[in-house]
Amino acid sequence: MTSPESATNRPLGVAMIGYAFMGKAHSNAWRNVASFFDVPAFEQKLLVGRDAAGVEAAAAKYGWAETATDWRSVMDRGDIDIVDICAPGWMHAEIAIAALQAGKHVLVEKPLANTLAEAEAMAAAAQAARAQGVQSMIGFNYRRVPALALARELIADGRVGTVRHIRAAYLQDWLADETAPMSWRLNKETAGSGALGDIASHAIDQVLFLLGDRVTEVSGRLHTFTTRRPGAAGMEDVTVDDAAWATLSLASGAIASVEVSRVATGRKNALSLEIYGDKGSLLFDLENLNELHFVDATAPAREQGFRRILVGEPEHPYLEAWWPQGHIIGWEHTFTHEIRDFLTAISTGTPPSPSFEDGLEVQRILNAIEESAAAKSSTILLARTTASEGA
Amino acid sequence: MTSPESATNRPLGVAMIGYAFMGKAHSNAWRNVASFFDVPAFEQKLLVGRDAAGVEAAAAKYGWAETATDWRSVMDRGDIDIVDICAPGWMHAEIAIAALQAGKHVLVEKPLANTLAEAEAMAAAAQAARAQGVQSMIGFNYRRVPALALARELIADGRVGTVRHIRAAYLQDWLADETAPMSWRLNKETAGSGALGDIASHAIDQVLFLLGDRVTEVSGRLHTFTTRRPGAAGMEDVTVDDAAWATLSLASGAIASVEVSRVATGRKNALSLEIYGDKGSLLFDLENLNELHFVDATAPAREQGFRRILVGEPEHPYLEAWWPQGHIIGWEHTFTHEIRDFLTAISTGTPPSPSFEDGLEVQRILNAIEESAAAKSSTILLARTTASEGA
Amino acid sequence: MTSPESATNRPLGVAMIGYAFMGKAHSNAWRNVASFFDVPAFEQKLLVGRDAAGVEAAAAKYGWAETATDWRSVMDRGDIDIVDICAPGWMHAEIAIAALQAGKHVLVEKPLANTLAEAEAMAAAAQAARAQGVQSMIGFNYRRVPALALARELIADGRVGTVRHIRAAYLQDWLADETAPMSWRLNKETAGSGALGDIASHAIDQVLFLLGDRVTEVSGRLHTFTTRRPGAAGMEDVTVDDAAWATLSLASGAIASVEVSRVATGRKNALSLEIYGDKGSLLFDLENLNELHFVDATAPAREQGFRRILVGEPEHPYLEAWWPQGHIIGWEHTFTHEIRDFLTAISTGTPPSPSFEDGLEVQRILNAIEESAAAKSSTILLARTTASEGA
Amino acid sequence: MTSPESATNRPLGVAMIGYAFMGKAHSNAWRNVASFFDVPAFEQKLLVGRDAAGVEAAAAKYGWAETATDWRSVMDRGDIDIVDICAPGWMHAEIAIAALQAGKHVLVEKPLANTLAEAEAMAAAAQAARAQGVQSMIGFNYRRVPALALARELIADGRVGTVRHIRAAYLQDWLADETAPMSWRLNKETAGSGALGDIASHAIDQVLFLLGDRVTEVSGRLHTFTTRRPGAAGMEDVTVDDAAWATLSLASGAIASVEVSRVATGRKNALSLEIYGDKGSLLFDLENLNELHFVDATAPAREQGFRRILVGEPEHPYLEAWWPQGHIIGWEHTFTHEIRDFLTAISTGTPPSPSFEDGLEVQRILNAIEESAAAKSSTILLARTTASEGA
Repeated sequence: MTSPESATNRPLGVAMIGYAFMGKAHSNAWRNVASFFDVPAFEQKLLVGRDAAGVEAAAAKYGWAETATDWRSVMDRGDIDIVDICAPGWMHAEIAIAALQAGKHVLVEKPLANTLAEAEAMAAAAQAARAQGVQSMIGFNYRRVPALALARELIADGRVGTVRHIRAAYLQDWLADETAPMSWRLNKETAGSGALGDIASHAIDQVLFLLGDRVTEVSGRLHTFTTRRPGAAGMEDVTVDDAAWATLSLASGAIASVEVSRVATGRKNALSLEIYGDKGSLLFDLENLNELHFVDATAPAREQGFRRILVGEPEHPYLEAWWPQGHIIGWEHTFTHEIRDFLTAISTGTPPSPSFEDGLEVQRILNAIEESAAAKSSTILLARTTASEGA
Repeated sequence: MTSPESATNRPLGVAMIGYAFMGKAHSNAWRNVASFFDVPAFEQKLLVGRDAAGVEAAAAKYGWAETATDWRSVMDRGDIDIVDICAPGWMHAEIAIAALQAGKHVLVEKPLANTLAEAEAMAAAAQAARAQGVQSMIGFNYRRVPALALARELIADGRVGTVRHIRAAYLQDWLADETAPMSWRLNKETAGSGALGDIASHAIDQVLFLLGDRVTEVSGRLHTFTTRRPGAAGMEDVTVDDAAWATLSLASGAIASVEVSRVATGRKNALSLEIYGDKGSLLFDLENLNELHFVDATAPAREQGFRRILVGEPEHPYLEAWWPQGHIIGWEHTFTHEIRDFLTAISTGTPPSPSFEDGLEVQRILNAIEESAAAKSSTILLARTTASEGA
Repeated sequence: MTSPESATNRPLGVAMIGYAFMGKAHSNAWRNVASFFDVPAFEQKLLVGRDAAGVEAAAAKYGWAETATDWRSVMDRGDIDIVDICAPGWMHAEIAIAALQAGKHVLVEKPLANTLAEAEAMAAAAQAARAQGVQSMIGFNYRRVPALALARELIADGRVGTVRHIRAAYLQDWLADETAPMSWRLNKETAGSGALGDIASHAIDQVLFLLGDRVTEVSGRLHTFTTRRPGAAGMEDVTVDDAAWATLSLASGAIASVEVSRVATGRKNALSLEIYGDKGSLLFDLENLNELHFVDATAPAREQGFRRILVGEPEHPYLEAWWPQGHIIGWEHTFTHEIRDFLTAISTGTPPSPSFEDGLEVQRILNAIEESAAAKSSTILLARTTASEGA
Repeated sequence: MTSPESATNRPLGVAMIGYAFMGKAHSNAWRNVASFFDVPAFEQKLLVGRDAAGVEAAAAKYGWAETATDWRSVMDRGDIDIVDICAPGWMHAEIAIAALQAGKHVLVEKPLANTLAEAEAMAAAAQAARAQGVQSMIGFNYRRVPALALARELIADGRVGTVRHIRAAYLQDWLADETAPMSWRLNKETAGSGALGDIASHAIDQVLFLLGDRVTEVSGRLHTFTTRRPGAAGMEDVTVDDAAWATLSLASGAIASVEVSRVATGRKNALSLEIYGDKGSLLFDLENLNELHFVDATAPAREQGFRRILVGEPEHPYLEAWWPQGHIIGWEHTFTHEIRDFLTAISTGTPPSPSFEDGLEVQRILNAIEESAAAKSSTILLARTTASEGA
């Protein structure tokens, strides 16, 4: 077991596992973080992927020095201090636990795992490792959108007063076309769930992050609009949800509604958050992620209104490192900020946030929504046949 | 019983009952409709209210020729052909049924009634009267917002394809201040319900109107954030909801979410509707009621995007009567259009829409939401005490 | 000569001359003003138009008691106290001067007149009449948009500090189609000028109104993109401008740019104003006339941003009379407010604003823009032929 | 003289001169371009700056292998094929001409030079070098905003028809505070001009780029609102413009207005472009650079409206390389795209665009605006003293 604490002053060695969409995004962050932020020295040492040719091409493109095809080989290497897991969800638990036990700091993409049991095991491993000074973090990258970090600050400062309710949605449309093909993402075995795990997880994490609150009760619903799609071998069953709806009760007394969809035609990546407090409110939309809208209800009525804050001032979270005001940053820098905070946490020995436990919390909420949806406790107004006749 | 059919060619005589907010709005519509639309001749004959001085002042201000203090006196008058009921909800049933039985055409403000039993009696009375050529209509005035009438046309024309889901909200903030006083609107006895009956009714009617669909199942939740407010005699209990959430299953297979609130700080009159179909989508917000946003997903991907249609062209519903393009109209003309359609229906003998039966349908849905909310079938994650400690 | 001051307590008698677009809009204001505002008693006595059948139909539709076909007949009538001139611009001077000399209060639509000489004569007549207690006003109705009245208040209160520059535009597109027909509006003889007099006049009046300032120098340019259009007798020459550009120097040191066009495809009625001060700024667009955007640059940088004020609170100019917050009003009520202020001025004996002198001031500025445009003092970069080759 | 053509297959060697704001932005582009685009192999070999310690720190941070303190030393190095000039404008001519003569491909930041004479010499040098296969390019990076590249495509495809007029503005507010300090940017000696050269240059380049047109005549105005600012040695004279206004005649017959300001409070980086054609129009704002608004005036009137195209589809320029739809990119990638196109041009031997001649063209237009402004040909309405009294 390597011990980062005892490491000499050599740069931290980083290994990344997986090089698809998330691997590309994380690599970008590793490649650029030190050009904008003061972070401890590190090296992009090793990229791991099953296909030797593929991983070599990716390493060349994304800036990794070496490659490997078996993630297990990483665990024995004394020159690797950090493991960044961008592999599919069903592999998270095994890799993360092994890495933590080998004394590596671990960053893992969301969702924490595909099953609650795995997530619990991971949280336990993280807790044990933390006692040894080994850090871990789950990649809810939207916590590092500057506008959302600012939103959290404004809420914590009391600028919206007591939050009454939150209206959260995450709307996309890449499955709106019913002829879009079957994929592993649409199969419960491989994906765990559909829009719920993929994007409701982000929306729910934001609720927890922004309010620093906990969920006490949930009520939910899932729906699949297109139940069969063309696969490699003809039409196949889609076994995950296209859309989900939930209401969450929070310990503070606030209520959150969550609505997510992959068939919301015209919405491309619309994580929208509306936070209504008794002294003010906040609005956010990921498609315009450099903006936060804020109304201060303590201002004179004559001058009240949602103000569009272009989050690009040195006074805003993370922004001092970037460009002059009004020169907007892109989606990918949520990861740059995440890596920055992760590296800072490692160097200061402060456990980073969000923790695996935070990831487990989200997982439990998602699970409860699935249970609630399965219980199907709605009030029936019309028998289906009657309704169809009526329509 | 008067018989409008047998009426000579004299103008239709109109009586209006009630002269508060809705009375002011309806009066404005009666006063102006003939200046913009070709409607059968009518006269603003009679305004009815309990306070003699008050009703006389209102009649002078709003353009009514005479006044009366007892609505029952209207029923015997042979020169009154139309009764427009703007009295409080608990009076609707008695007045409307009496008027219909007296052979008067009846327009009644929403909600149809405070109880389901009353609403059912009203629908039965309307059906009986209709067989005699006596017309009736419920005032879901937002069906007459030109942008929403256009939305319905576009949906009917197939421009959004099959609707998958609808996201409806009606957000206001006039109760955000917890020191705002108690009123009859916050008492279940007098108001029936809170945000649910007052504004969710509009949102739900729009779902039915836009899709021409029926609701088969509902699941809902109600919440009161401020449970006691200062009244005439000290602090009093608020017995209606401040906010409500529901999901509705539609006979077509579509799903609608509905969220309403009177404590959504910064939202003044935000009825927002988002309709997601497989070929396109529509967005609307009542605070910008002259606009409809439409995305056509059959256009080349390179050129797709929500287009802001400024609904002010002669080609748009109701608009030929008004001003040149881009000269926006106000909220009050939803009533002008409503009266126009009501008068046209009377003159052509075509039953107007929405009918009392449509109003009853909405009432049933609201009732089902209350039942579902009372059943409280959520999944419990944390015991309250644990949660509070954790928070 | 009638003397309004000595009038008994009978209602003021109003005559309106002209019943086209502006006549329809003014009638609407007269018909409704007393239902919303406390104004002195008046009667819509007389509508004047050259075509007997046409004016009778209009009077019936718009609420005028009598009709006449010769405007001169109005001058002798002792029961007419107010003349509202909605006739074409070339008739303004003759009618207005006659009416003022007959002791009638006069409201005249903008532009004041088609020529500077006429405008000067009108201003002189207004001044003379004013000394006799006879009031006059020019109908720059956008001074009565509540959001713009609020803008003026905020500027006067110092909320934007010293204004440095203003960016004003009025963009429409009803002439974008080059096959749109010739009309009197496109002929210099009848219309005076094109976009300049029609819509730049509004933009310039707003600059003067908002800042309470005067123009010292102008530089301008006019252009006609479609120089021939189909008329009754084949193709005819368009002799007015389609678009105009100007910069104005103000006595305060501020600078205003003005850009107007009738060929700005997609812009329907977009009077947009941007006022930049050293402590704040304001934005307005007539297509969303219930909104004013305001940034307060003295707020902490972290919280700054243009706030969208939905101008619908009782605290806002004119709004207490209307509907609850967030229930927007339409374009036509700029006239309702104008009539209200005009009637109030008459009853209190205070000269109303904007005066004929204010109208003359705008006329002088428009004239100076035409002169500057004719002087054509630009710097030549390329000979036309060279340029065309290069392109 | 090195000859890139004869270079062996070794990667292209890049030297960058200057490491302030633009150096940081260009470095970012060099560091990342190969991770997203297929470009010829290159190396970030050398960073040049006058301060040895400063340049070393910058090189380490931004990814450059070596450093140098004298830009002249670059010219003799056979391993340097490309020189990227991010030094101040007054140094551009000398460095660029030397580099071109040494056979290096040259990318130079805008503006091309501080004087017209220098710009002309640079264009001549570029022309001579081009004949030798040595490429050059000026960094009008906004040509590489995907939304603006799309706008150009749509215009070229005829989607807006014949362009009648363009409304261009570039508004910032970093000088709105009159106590902001004096700097080299506010001194004509060092900066050439103020807002004109700095940001009007971008706006004018866009007009030329989007339309593929040339300017034939200009009329302009410059103004300095704050004429003295606190410097190192007390109050100093500001000798450049804070704001500028111009109208441009284009060879095609179109007219463009340009307005730029550094004192437009609340505007942070608002390059806004409005292109009005007879078949459609386009709107763009750099503060939301992932969006393009387009109205198609050939669509049915009922469905027309500006559509917000979220420029993030694989069908859009440059976007296939980036993230899934709706995941927005930042301002800095205008440079990434610029470097990509520059490298591609070098590898294919096609002269890149915009050329030094394009930069010279913009410079000539800026010069003509200054001349026109100096000629001061406005029409005087009021003597200043009169005006002040009147105000």
